[in-house]
Amino acid sequence: MTFTSIQRMTQQNRQWRVATVPNDRLSASNFTLETADRPEPAPGQVLCRVLLISIDAAGRAWFQADTYRRALRPGDVMPGFAIGQVVASRCDGLSPGDIVSGDLGWQEYAVADGTKLDRIQPSRPLPNYLSVLGVTGLTAFFGLLEAGGARPGETVVVSAAAGATGSIVGQIARLAGCRVVGICGSPEKQRFLTETLGFDAVVNHRDPTLREALRSACPSGADVYFDNVGGRTLEVMMGAMGHGGRIVCCGAVSQYDTNAPMVGVRGVPGYLILRSLTMRGFLLSDYLPRYGAGLKVLERWLADGSLRPMEEVLEGLEEAPEALVGLLNGANLGKRMIRVAAQA
Amino acid sequence: MTFTSIQRMTQQNRQWRVATVPNDRLSASNFTLETADRPEPAPGQVLCRVLLISIDAAGRAWFQADTYRRALRPGDVMPGFAIGQVVASRCDGLSPGDIVSGDLGWQEYAVADGTKLDRIQPSRPLPNYLSVLGVTGLTAFFGLLEAGGARPGETVVVSAAAGATGSIVGQIARLAGCRVVGICGSPEKQRFLTETLGFDAVVNHRDPTLREALRSACPSGADVYFDNVGGRTLEVMMGAMGHGGRIVCCGAVSQYDTNAPMVGVRGVPGYLILRSLTMRGFLLSDYLPRYGAGLKVLERWLADGSLRPMEEVLEGLEEAPEALVGLLNGANLGKRMIRVAAQA
Repeated sequence: MTFTSIQRMTQQNRQWRVATVPNDRLSASNFTLETADRPEPAPGQVLCRVLLISIDAAGRAWFQADTYRRALRPGDVMPGFAIGQVVASRCDGLSPGDIVSGDLGWQEYAVADGTKLDRIQPSRPLPNYLSVLGVTGLTAFFGLLEAGGARPGETVVVSAAAGATGSIVGQIARLAGCRVVGICGSPEKQRFLTETLGFDAVVNHRDPTLREALRSACPSGADVYFDNVGGRTLEVMMGAMGHGGRIVCCGAVSQYDTNAPMVGVRGVPGYLILRSLTMRGFLLSDYLPRYGAGLKVLERWLADGSLRPMEEVLEGLEEAPEALVGLLNGANLGKRMIRVAAQA
Repeated sequence: MTFTSIQRMTQQNRQWRVATVPNDRLSASNFTLETADRPEPAPGQVLCRVLLISIDAAGRAWFQADTYRRALRPGDVMPGFAIGQVVASRCDGLSPGDIVSGDLGWQEYAVADGTKLDRIQPSRPLPNYLSVLGVTGLTAFFGLLEAGGARPGETVVVSAAAGATGSIVGQIARLAGCRVVGICGSPEKQRFLTETLGFDAVVNHRDPTLREALRSACPSGADVYFDNVGGRTLEVMMGAMGHGGRIVCCGAVSQYDTNAPMVGVRGVPGYLILRSLTMRGFLLSDYLPRYGAGLKVLERWLADGSLRPMEEVLEGLEEAPEALVGLLNGANLGKRMIRVAAQA
């Protein structure tokens, strides 16, 4: 191998692109691993080496329709929130070696506008910044305490309780003095949540007597339901709420991995009226001015061991599609991410 | 006619009872007019002559399932909120001649526990106490200003806008400095709402381009949607809300006049999340401690002509079933009630 060919190799950029839009459930064959030239930063931009990619169920929903981003089409580099390290900078305030987070996508290198990146000055292992100290932790924190207004002594129910957000919601609820009931999809997760994370009760959404199981787990009705799943579980929970209860709508993962028309939720507005319930959807960006304040609390809880980060770090960019497919099938415990490269 | 037969007649009580539970849409034949003995008050009770009966869409919903009251069964006297005048009292604090309101039912005379009645000291025509100065006005007042948190300059949309509650919601929204958009079911109602009540825009829910009509009536999206109807209109409105909008769930009249299974609402939780929406159901009793404060404001608005009471007073107990059937078909303009007797 000559010097020139080595140079060319290091100028290359492997990236996962959308091959086809899924017809129904997502599979790894909907993606194709391609090699492109490593891009050059324009003025105001930086070139990053991608270190850790967050794997999120929302990635499947991005195929369904235009939302806060345009619906994905064949040829698109698969987007994804990630942590990267600046390799070259044409942006004031960011220098080579800096660690940043932002939507860098499923690839080895990315250029991004400096204004769209957040600089991280890591004092803890990098994966923490995609779990408790990142979007996931902030979503759990503001969603539960602000959108849901959980107060000491209340009963909080959380679905996808063993997932990235749910496992943090449940832990924060306990720290806030609440009784915590989890909903998850397997006996292993049920055991983990009660034995390791200290949930007060955990029910399985596949249980044919889910309705009764929830009633006996919440004898006076739930005060707060943090909903990550939507669909039938949301419908059943509407009937398990106590008077004046609050439902926080954070996600609807049960509705993502399909091209079928959206299913309506029965009980809206019936239960809302009869029980004086509030349902509140939110986007994390609603709380942008207070990210810093939230992160300080999360850092303290992490430092003193109050919060246990649940992280699954899979090795290698090539794992990304299967990692997402598995996540949609509930294979993960906590926050799933892909390590693409080590911090230099 | 002898003295004895006259005595017997005045001791009688005509009452509408449930004959059959409707299979689908309600009809007058689901009720039967019967004559019973006039009841005697027990200790703590009063005997009232019923003066004015409120006709409410909820009456149809009471057939569907147990809610805050047991589901109606054949033989039940049809319940209904009403104004009555005390004829005989075995209750401290209530005397013959007093005017009271409470659930007296579709009948000429009713006994009721004194604790379940509210005394009215009327300074205005009695029908006002079933419209602006009663449950309807308070529902509009607290629903819009508290549950919905409507603020000056915001766009408020209200459905069943020409109905009892909707016509007051729209007027209060204007008094609160909001832009008001109504949804109703006929061109006559549209004209009435814009020309007489001063709504800024009114759309017809039967319009096949309802979605587009709402978008052009609310170019920046609605801030508050006061929902009286549920079903498809609620679904369409979810897509017409602005970021951070609030949906007040007050009723679901589109779902009452049927025995078909409830239809689910699509867009829950999708739109709630994408637009950071809040949906809040309420029961008027949530605001019980502040009824008096609300009534003072409503009385002032009525006295100074700011609020126009929309009342339809139909004459005679025998009209009650057809009055409810008509109401469910949208035949009313404003608050419908039945005058059974004049105040003594």
